[in-house]
Amino acid sequence: MTDRIHATYLIETAADPAGAVAVMAGEQSSGTFMKLPGETDALRERSGARIERIEPLESTDAPSLPGAMASGNGVYARATVELSWPLENIGPSLPNLMATVAGNLFELKQFSGLKILDIDLPAPFFERYSGPKFGIDGTRKLSGVHDRPLLGTIVKPSVGLDVAGTAALVDTLCAAGLDFIKDDELQANGSFCPFEDRARAVMDVINRHADRSGSKAMYAFNITGDLDEMRRHHDLVLELGGTCVMVSLNSVGIVGMVEIAGHSQLPVHAHRNGWGYLSRSPALGWSYIAWQKIWRLAGADHMHVNGLRNKFCESDDSVMASARACLTPMSTDHPCLVMPVFSSGQTVHQVAETFSGLGSNDLIHAAGGGIVGHPDGVAAGVSAMREAWEAARLGISAPARAADHPDLARALEFYRP
Amino acid sequence: MTDRIHATYLIETAADPAGAVAVMAGEQSSGTFMKLPGETDALRERSGARIERIEPLESTDAPSLPGAMASGNGVYARATVELSWPLENIGPSLPNLMATVAGNLFELKQFSGLKILDIDLPAPFFERYSGPKFGIDGTRKLSGVHDRPLLGTIVKPSVGLDVAGTAALVDTLCAAGLDFIKDDELQANGSFCPFEDRARAVMDVINRHADRSGSKAMYAFNITGDLDEMRRHHDLVLELGGTCVMVSLNSVGIVGMVEIAGHSQLPVHAHRNGWGYLSRSPALGWSYIAWQKIWRLAGADHMHVNGLRNKFCESDDSVMASARACLTPMSTDHPCLVMPVFSSGQTVHQVAETFSGLGSNDLIHAAGGGIVGHPDGVAAGVSAMREAWEAARLGISAPARAADHPDLARALEFYRP
Repeated sequence: MTDRIHATYLIETAADPAGAVAVMAGEQSSGTFMKLPGETDALRERSGARIERIEPLESTDAPSLPGAMASGNGVYARATVELSWPLENIGPSLPNLMATVAGNLFELKQFSGLKILDIDLPAPFFERYSGPKFGIDGTRKLSGVHDRPLLGTIVKPSVGLDVAGTAALVDTLCAAGLDFIKDDELQANGSFCPFEDRARAVMDVINRHADRSGSKAMYAFNITGDLDEMRRHHDLVLELGGTCVMVSLNSVGIVGMVEIAGHSQLPVHAHRNGWGYLSRSPALGWSYIAWQKIWRLAGADHMHVNGLRNKFCESDDSVMASARACLTPMSTDHPCLVMPVFSSGQTVHQVAETFSGLGSNDLIHAAGGGIVGHPDGVAAGVSAMREAWEAARLGISAPARAADHPDLARALEFYRP
Repeated sequence: MTDRIHATYLIETAADPAGAVAVMAGEQSSGTFMKLPGETDALRERSGARIERIEPLESTDAPSLPGAMASGNGVYARATVELSWPLENIGPSLPNLMATVAGNLFELKQFSGLKILDIDLPAPFFERYSGPKFGIDGTRKLSGVHDRPLLGTIVKPSVGLDVAGTAALVDTLCAAGLDFIKDDELQANGSFCPFEDRARAVMDVINRHADRSGSKAMYAFNITGDLDEMRRHHDLVLELGGTCVMVSLNSVGIVGMVEIAGHSQLPVHAHRNGWGYLSRSPALGWSYIAWQKIWRLAGADHMHVNGLRNKFCESDDSVMASARACLTPMSTDHPCLVMPVFSSGQTVHQVAETFSGLGSNDLIHAAGGGIVGHPDGVAAGVSAMREAWEAARLGISAPARAADHPDLARALEFYRP
């Protein structure tokens, strides 16, 4: 914990790194591209960004991004850089944090690469923002799932089902024993499947199954929208006995998230769609380690992290680092732990490695085809996935567990490793 | 105008472009990575994304981004691609538009490059969102500046001045005749320079000069913050007789912007800091042409576009394309025109080219050192910039105009072209 705002970056520059970082620190605080009469030593001492460290990394021979100063000797230095700012510059404000740690600096001519790797926030941020209201414990309590991941799936087709079709599918999923079901992020409040009708029909099904089985599937209704609409839809879900709402972070932004999470009496399932445009260039944008802290503090309870051997471009190392970050305390007094949500091309084959990599069962494991595509049906798919996690928990291999669990045996055989 | 949602992309793929685009269209609508029983022909016909066109571009021999499928023959095809979706999938919702046109697609394994180039929205979006309340006409009316750009500057040092220091600087700037002054985006509501005290002190100065000169400088107060705080600060600025508020778009997000612009009775000056992480990779993220449409519809009145020969990495062609976009109607009935804001390393030397490139005087031209650093003082700096614009308007060269305008002559000589 610190009393200043800290941020760590990967930089790449044709210039001397120390000089380039001085420009960066100036641009993000009291300096500009020319000397200013008002920038006194006292002012700079009070408000200037401080360079905490510059750790050289291996250099490269070509610029990662165009537009920057060219290197005279063909060398582009790379380094890890940490800056800090006095909290008093902006106060404990998440929106204003953005301009300071991730504002104009990505465009500076000094840098042919610049990525924000991490942030560290002083205590007053944790007093001003509430963080997750439910987090891991609250999600387990509401779902009644303990000692294993919540096993989930996504309503598919992502968009296009009408209300009756959605409810019929949810009926099948609840009958099969899924713990968690979510709207796809493409499913919102269009006239093909209006939110209110969908929520009523889906909750009728879920409540009926809960009355029968005693356990209520947690359904993450996508309430992403304008603020009044989000509040209204949250209130409806709450009134109908629902236990989760979903929001697309890049759609609503920080102010939208702070407002709806502040209003919410249900866990907020935070979807990261659009994450690719923030992260996919290795030399530009955001690392998930930095980014997820903002949304946890803003009130997310579940955060998407992709999955091992996913259908997208992200490496397994990156996925596991993201998930571990969600389970790493942000501060001693305010850990703000959230449930990582694994999804994308998931089957029983990723379970052992997910468990060993994370060192925890505190996650939502969502699979589409990996559960509903089981050759013996959805219930067999759920059973197979549950047994794969039980094997992991017991420290035995999935094939060993499969010896007397035929659903798991079929799944291990049916899905490609 | 269309009755569907359209988006245009630059793609780069090792695969056959038609096949890769089919995956993209599926991922962003009714398909997924495996065949689904529920994805009937009727459903796909109703809700599937439609491929409107694929126009091949020159291919490349190396992937722009890592993580994608590799090419067997070393060829990475590029193309311009247009998709469309039925409005009924999501309704006229700006937040939900994001997941549809800019969601998971940036991470698909098929693409070693993917950038969103443009969007085109059907009429109901313009009924649901109000767009700029002031725009160009409202800004000119409030500022009293006609037939030329608003000449502006930014309070510098960006952060670190206290309230008295800020007011003293604004006093100098008003005395010099600036039309427009703004907080830096780093200046928020920290304890070094609390918003309320700053607003009161600055508006005291501005109102005093307005009483004297008859023209009131437009000051863009940075109200970026949590929603209640933004509303409260807007209301204070309005009460004090201020004429503009500023918001950092990437800090507040779409919901924050829709809320504060809906609430605002003053022009909203929209700052794009962070734009670099969205745009700087040529093969990833957003083009400004697409991005600015979202914020105009959400209610921005002024939009930052960088400046010619700026201190950042952006090319002049890109800057002018951005600025022209701001002055291009979004629809016949709802043009949503906004004032482009040119800034970054601006002096009298960029005026002629800015005017000829834009074909309009409808802009805010903000300069720091380019005005306040004039060797004969700030008033001479304003006078020089004004005469440079008058020369452009009259169709004569700046040196010709400088013959009997010594402030301009000094500026042309002092600043490096």
